[in-house]
This record gives sequence, C-alpha cells and structure tokens, in this order.
Amino acid sequence: MHILIIGAAGMVGRKLAERLVRDSGLDGRAIDTMTLVDVVAPEEPAGFTGKTNIRTIDLSAPDAAESLITGRPDVIFHLAAIVSGEAELDFDKGYRINLDGTRYLFEAIRMAHQKDGYRPRLVFASSIAVVGAPLPYPIPDDFHTTPLTSYGTQKAISELLLSDYSRKGFFDGIGIRLPTVCIRPGKPNKAASGFFSNILREPLVGKEAVLPVSEDVRHWHASPRSAVGFMIHGATIDLEKVGPRRNLSMPGLSATVGEQIEALRRVAGDAAVRLIRREPDEMIMRMCAGWAPGFEATRARELGFTAESSFDDIIRVHIEDELGGSL
Amino acid sequence: MHILIIGAAGMVGRKLAERLVRDSGLDGRAIDTMTLVDVVAPEEPAGFTGKTNIRTIDLSAPDAAESLITGRPDVIFHLAAIVSGEAELDFDKGYRINLDGTRYLFEAIRMAHQKDGYRPRLVFASSIAVVGAPLPYPIPDDFHTTPLTSYGTQKAISELLLSDYSRKGFFDGIGIRLPTVCIRPGKPNKAASGFFSNILREPLVGKEAVLPVSEDVRHWHASPRSAVGFMIHGATIDLEKVGPRRNLSMPGLSATVGEQIEALRRVAGDAAVRLIRREPDEMIMRMCAGWAPGFEATRARELGFTAESSFDDIIRVHIEDELGGSL
Repeated sequence: MHILIIGAAGMVGRKLAERLVRDSGLDGRAIDTMTLVDVVAPEEPAGFTGKTNIRTIDLSAPDAAESLITGRPDVIFHLAAIVSGEAELDFDKGYRINLDGTRYLFEAIRMAHQKDGYRPRLVFASSIAVVGAPLPYPIPDDFHTTPLTSYGTQKAISELLLSDYSRKGFFDGIGIRLPTVCIRPGKPNKAASGFFSNILREPLVGKEAVLPVSEDVRHWHASPRSAVGFMIHGATIDLEKVGPRRNLSMPGLSATVGEQIEALRRVAGDAAVRLIRREPDEMIMRMCAGWAPGFEATRARELGFTAESSFDDIIRVHIEDELGGSL
Repeated sequence: MHILIIGAAGMVGRKLAERLVRDSGLDGRAIDTMTLVDVVAPEEPAGFTGKTNIRTIDLSAPDAAESLITGRPDVIFHLAAIVSGEAELDFDKGYRINLDGTRYLFEAIRMAHQKDGYRPRLVFASSIAVVGAPLPYPIPDDFHTTPLTSYGTQKAISELLLSDYSRKGFFDGIGIRLPTVCIRPGKPNKAASGFFSNILREPLVGKEAVLPVSEDVRHWHASPRSAVGFMIHGATIDLEKVGPRRNLSMPGLSATVGEQIEALRRVAGDAAVRLIRREPDEMIMRMCAGWAPGFEATRARELGFTAESSFDDIIRVHIEDELGGSL
C-alpha cells in the first residue's frame, strides 16, 4: 500500500506519519511506500521499514500535483494549507495555495482517473472556519457555511469540490472538519487562538502563559491524537455509509476557558494555574466572539469518529504524547 | 449610470434590460449606458435613449472580464451560466464557464479596485440547486449547501467567492438564489424541469402539454417578472442591512403540480386542463424527488424581496407579459 501525505511537515501530518508507522499499516494492509510532501522537507518517520519518498513541493505550481500521483498512491491525505492569518493578509497567496493547489490536486487525480481508472481515497483536512458568526450552540450538522475569513472560504470551496469530484467517481473523498487542535505542542506562536493551548502547555512545564480573554469564552477542541485518529478513520471508513454529504464536522469537546483552567488545576495543581497571567486583549476578544462554540457532530459520531470527552483527558493525552507520560 | 448585464441574451437578462428601459432608470438614477453581453449577441432593448454596447464575449476567456469593466459600470448583473444539464454532461465546460468565468470577473474587479478604488454593485444569479436532497420543507435560510450537481456546486462556490470579495470590499455583492422560473416563455425545451412551465403555457394557448410526474410533486416557483424584480431590488438594496451573509434564498411560491393544474382550471377552464397529457417518466420522477420543495426565505422577505403568493397570480403575470393581457 502506498500512502501520500501532502502537508507532512505540519504538526498533524508529522503525527499522522508516525502513527501509520506505529500501526505498521492501514486498515489491516501493510504500507510499503510513504510519500511525504511539503513546502519544507518533512522528516522521515523513525522505524519505517518501507520506502519513504521525501518531496519538497509547492502544490500551487501547476504540474506539482501530477508528479505526486505518478506512483498512484492508494490513499492521499491532503493537509497542506497556509493558515488563517496568512490567508487573510495575503489574499493572492491564500487562494493560490488553499484553493488552486487543492483544485490542481483534484484535477490531476481526475486526469489519471480518465486515463487508467485511478480512484484513490482522499482525506481532506477542512476546518471549523467554514462556519461564521452568528452561530448557534451547538451548531447542527446541516448548518450553512458562511465563513468570515478567506481561509474559511477556501476550505468551504474545497469541500464543495471534494463532494462533486467524489460524486462523479473521480476519487473517494472525505472532508474532515477539524476542531481547534489542543494542546498544540511546540512553542507559543502568534496565532490568535494560540492561547487555548498556551495556557495549558506552558504551566504544565512550569512556565508562564498569557490569557487574553475572559474565562467564559467557549470553544471547540480535540487533541492532536484525536485529529490523527479522524484522518485514519476517514481513510478506512465505508463511504457508502457516509453518502453524498462528504464533509463532516468532527466530534470534539466544547469547553470554556474556565473549564480548561479547572482541568489544569485537577491535573497539575494550583501552582500550575497560578502561572496563567491575565492580560486582556481587545482584538483577540473580538475575534473570539466569532469562533465556533461547539458542534453537534451527530453524523460523525454515528459514523464512528471519536474525540475526548473531558479536558482532563486532553491534558493527559498531551502528557503521554509530549511529556513522556508524567509531569 | 452605467449598467452591465452579463448573460443578457438569456430570458431573465433580456427581461431585465427591458424593465430597466421601462423604468427609465435604477434607484432614481437615469441610465446613460447599458452594456449587454452574452456568448450570442443580445438584442438591443427597444426604446432606450441612452447608449447601448452590445458585446459577444465568452466570460471564460481570461481577458474577457477585464474588457467588460474598462467602462467602470456602476452595477453589474452577472447572469451568465451554462445550465444544469449541460454542466453535468460536460464537466470541463461547466467549471470553465460557471466557476472560472465568475472568478475571472471577480478578479478583474479586484484588480480595478486596487488600481483606482472601483467598487461596483454586483448582483449574481445563483440558484436553488445549491441545496441537495434530502431536504426539509420548508428549507430554512441557514440550511447547508450540499449540491448534487456540478452546476449547483459551481453556484455554491461562486456564492462563497462573492461573500469573501464583498467582505474584503472589492465590490458590493449580493447573491440571488432564484426559484424555478415559471411560467418560462418560449417553446417547450428538453430541460427536465420544463414541464412545470409547459403544462401551463401550452394549454393557455390551446396546445397539448406532457406531464411526466405525479400531481403531488411539490416545487418552488416565481414568475419571470418576480425574478427580474429580485435583480432590481438586489441592485438597490442597502447592503448594510444584508450584512456579511450575502447569498439569499429568494421568496417564491411552493406548490404541487396538482395546485398548478387547479390554478390553470380557475384561470382558463376545464378545456385547458384537458390538454395536459399524463405520460409518467421514471427518470424525471427520480430527479424531481431531489428538487427543493420550498424555502422559508425569511431574510429575503424581511429585506423586501417579493414574489407571487398564488399560482393564479403566476398565470396572470404570464398572460399580461406574454399574451397581451388576455386569453
């Protein structure tokens, strides 16, 4: 079996490759080749006994996609995107990478399909940014996509293309609307939503973190491990059961910042909580008001997608996967 | 004031140009120039005292859009599209005209905006094909767009682009989700939905018409006059009141085929009804099952869009506008 991961240098892409190696296969089939692609060279996953192709490619170059599928990968994970903030600042780049890049990939597959019947499974990382305020809570599965960012627009358009190309039989696609991934490993970054992770990850290792919003802000979370689990399940699920509506809001945990902090207290004590410094930021508070508080995700749950059910679990996953299992 | 109508040779485009001439203006402003564009030369509207530019252009040619806006039209009506059946049969052509053509237009306006601050009103003809079965009745305004045709996909994508370009201030866009236009003037055509018009239009002039579905089929209708009215209102409405959700399901009349026939009986008598020949068509019946039965259209109604409230009215509009006012 040949797996292609586009966006393999990103956090979810890297963890996905590691998980596939750890599982030594997908859906009971051995993986003999992994092609890992990104704009910067992805790392070779440790312990993989098959062949790894590392490719440094910009998907928005018109011929890039065609070259990625010459080996006819059985499963394609398409995780490549520039992030929300960058897509908002650079309109051209956002559309070039997040829309045109995706369309080039879909078109390359269609051409291959018409040539030799190629029809891979395609798992696309979409985002809760496809919805836009005002939002009900919880957001039902049949709620409309009225994004308030160019990034969300590009993801929503890609979802529509994915459904249409799948309906036509060019590939077997599924769109995975990822919750905000929490706790994001690594260093604090400047993403406006970074604080959701910062206020847990930093205190867990004795460092200070800044909380720019009030404790009643409610948002929608899943751990990196769950995000990878969604991708794997999307790659193996029976798509007959999914039907023509191929883009699914994933399950997650709806929690307020206050609930996050109480979970931190339970897992790591008052000393950890005291490392959270309140520094209200008007701009981030305004942005937050438009973010998704939580989804019903009824269809995805019924289809077997699972996520954490408490923030204690999300923190424990972080301790296990990033901190060697203990504080 | 300069008005550009793209798709001016189509039925709605032609009637829109005629209406603008009849109103001798738009929103109280005189029209000095009308640019009428289509892939076949649109007719010059009778009685227009201003300047008419007739252009024969394929919007999917990369430089076509730029040439259309060199005169910086104040209002752009974008009605150009290939129809559902053709877009389904010719995947490439559908995406080229209905998606790329629209995007070229939006991009040309953005370039002009960045050059000299140009920011026209843009009224886009979308379609109820953006939703796909299974559908509730009535369909709420916040129902998701999961089209089951490439045409519907292309319209839904254009809606998303329209919202994003409007949000960014490149133009002031509004998307008008047209109901099925009934009674369509002209001859019976091969469109699967043609019978909704055929079973009224033909008997009204003493001709036979074929009904391929059962009388309990429910669908969503508005007259050609209402469709033009939506366009005019979309061109003049205060977009501050519309807000960021720029694509509106228009009001219409939800009626069964049986209700259509009873209206025909009231207006034209039993003799007219006897001209409807039942000839069940399995394929059309299957397609019908996926079509929209009706929308709440709450937002559009609140924003002042209006349509007929009975099929008697729809028939009367046809008699007035197409048959000289009497049978």
